[in-house]
Amino acid sequence: MASEAQSSAPDNLPLVLIHRIPPFELSFKSWLPTRFRLLDPLDPSFSSPQTQSLVSSVRLLLCLGPSPLTSDTLDRFPSVQCVVGSSAGLDHVDLATCCRRGITVTNAGDAFSADAADFAVALLIDVLRRVSAGDRFIRAGSWPAKGQYPLGSKLLFSLVNITDNQTWWLFQLGGKRVGIIGLGSIGSMIAKRLEPFGCIIAYNSRRKKPNVSFPHYENVMDLATNSDALILCCALTNETHHMINKDVMTALGKEGVIINVGRGALIDEKELVRFLVKGDIGGAGLDVYEEEPEVPRELFELDNVVLSPHRAVATPEAFVALQEVVIANIEAFFANKPLPSQIELE
Amino acid sequence: MASEAQSSAPDNLPLVLIHRIPPFELSFKSWLPTRFRLLDPLDPSFSSPQTQSLVSSVRLLLCLGPSPLTSDTLDRFPSVQCVVGSSAGLDHVDLATCCRRGITVTNAGDAFSADAADFAVALLIDVLRRVSAGDRFIRAGSWPAKGQYPLGSKLLFSLVNITDNQTWWLFQLGGKRVGIIGLGSIGSMIAKRLEPFGCIIAYNSRRKKPNVSFPHYENVMDLATNSDALILCCALTNETHHMINKDVMTALGKEGVIINVGRGALIDEKELVRFLVKGDIGGAGLDVYEEEPEVPRELFELDNVVLSPHRAVATPEAFVALQEVVIANIEAFFANKPLPSQIELE
Repeated sequence: MASEAQSSAPDNLPLVLIHRIPPFELSFKSWLPTRFRLLDPLDPSFSSPQTQSLVSSVRLLLCLGPSPLTSDTLDRFPSVQCVVGSSAGLDHVDLATCCRRGITVTNAGDAFSADAADFAVALLIDVLRRVSAGDRFIRAGSWPAKGQYPLGSKLLFSLVNITDNQTWWLFQLGGKRVGIIGLGSIGSMIAKRLEPFGCIIAYNSRRKKPNVSFPHYENVMDLATNSDALILCCALTNETHHMINKDVMTALGKEGVIINVGRGALIDEKELVRFLVKGDIGGAGLDVYEEEPEVPRELFELDNVVLSPHRAVATPEAFVALQEVVIANIEAFFANKPLPSQIELE
Repeated sequence: MASEAQSSAPDNLPLVLIHRIPPFELSFKSWLPTRFRLLDPLDPSFSSPQTQSLVSSVRLLLCLGPSPLTSDTLDRFPSVQCVVGSSAGLDHVDLATCCRRGITVTNAGDAFSADAADFAVALLIDVLRRVSAGDRFIRAGSWPAKGQYPLGSKLLFSLVNITDNQTWWLFQLGGKRVGIIGLGSIGSMIAKRLEPFGCIIAYNSRRKKPNVSFPHYENVMDLATNSDALILCCALTNETHHMINKDVMTALGKEGVIINVGRGALIDEKELVRFLVKGDIGGAGLDVYEEEPEVPRELFELDNVVLSPHRAVATPEAFVALQEVVIANIEAFFANKPLPSQIELE
């Protein structure tokens, strides 16, 4: 039996269809192609009659990165029963079609959660304490020009009358009420990290989580009203699209801060820019945008905004973890076992 | 008795000598001057015969911010028995003279500790995850120019061969061995904050701390050898001056990171610049420098360095806390009670 398995011709390996846009390349552990027969539409040989004869029977599609997976694409592969995704959010996948066809879908599981949580905390401290703005201040050569104590002269021992120079207003993390929107794996890790800073955590999610002691708010408006900062780390769906709108930002208030490590379209970006430019909210830390890689240029001039090019999740360690979860999902599918990071479709 | 106390003329109030350099002004709660008679050498009336007659008997000196307090200055006030400081570090005060004269000295106590710890964590995440560099990348307009996935194309699914483009190398916090130098109030708070990120904490201090389970290293070389990042939050003294030298940086290694929220001269800055420019250490997050406000310009070009203009401690909340500890120290001195934040002189 053992020698028979080892002598299997590649033709007998389980088929895995790769779905990707060109920047995303596959260089998983070199043994992946030895375990599965990979079909890649971007490969010139894909159009060969031999490969095409396999396409109609392929049961598993591996979607790399945020490559859009539309209903039309799925229609071309009628035998697909499983989409193995490789990102935390799957808003690039037509989940309604998957649900209708009974296709199971997996995401990156927890592979990216720690990275995203770390980055959300970094963005929050950066906005409150102006880390990036301070770095810019120094690199512009402004420190010697503005004197040795640009802050000291304004703030130190001048406790009562600190009202001018909003740019350099700094906020302490301790005591800040942080509202986490989406208390999944990422959100829970954010909460765990922020508690030792003295932040007071509350959250919004579709359903109250069992065994979680943080206050749950059923709607975002109430959470915003009772928060100094909102952190977005939920999935982008029809329901969450533009959930941070004018009303929510008004409820958050002039000193309120918004951190987004989820998806750009969770926020009505045009409104956000208006609120920031007018000073109607206190600041924002953004890793994602509605029209990436375009970022509203009005934000480039603001010191109470921290901008990041969608890389809250991008460490080598996270990609090693991702590789493991992707392979585990593929192997579980072909072994008819429960998929480690299957998502709930509704 | 009560009415007699209330009718005290200002002349009968305890004398407090203010010592400050011009940027630092006193606007403590307005009632401070109603409780104490403040003598300020920067005040024109200070040279009046009436004020000068009081100077020789003043017992308490309130030192604002990092105003240098030399032996010569102290000699001019022979009756001073107590120096109330208002910063965490007191390297600007001639502590040897204080010790010789038996002057008790207080610092800011814990007023700034949370701010400093928060900032140290922010600098560490920023260096490891390139938050400020990412912000700069976007504000330079580089994101659309470099394509939608500046990282994805290099890193995503390319796990084995990530060796080029050091600038964009990102590190995960989880599993990093962080060596804290100085496990006082600030260092302890840093440790508490970093544990939920999955960092592995060790520390160096003059003495092993009782009731602390983190490994203690008696010398900095050993700590550097066993750390991925060093965080400096100890006092600057003759013993700690340039403690981070060429040998320690070599021990820390090419991927090692140095965070400094203590004082600039804890590091041999010229060596640090050489190591960073040559890529012989992995990065640095600096809030303090040897010749503030001068920052070595070689660092301005480096994306693995985060620069901050000495404002790890600068939130309004911290200054409120500072005010409380300063007043508590002054009141305790005049009441002959133990001073809340007296430091140990040796």
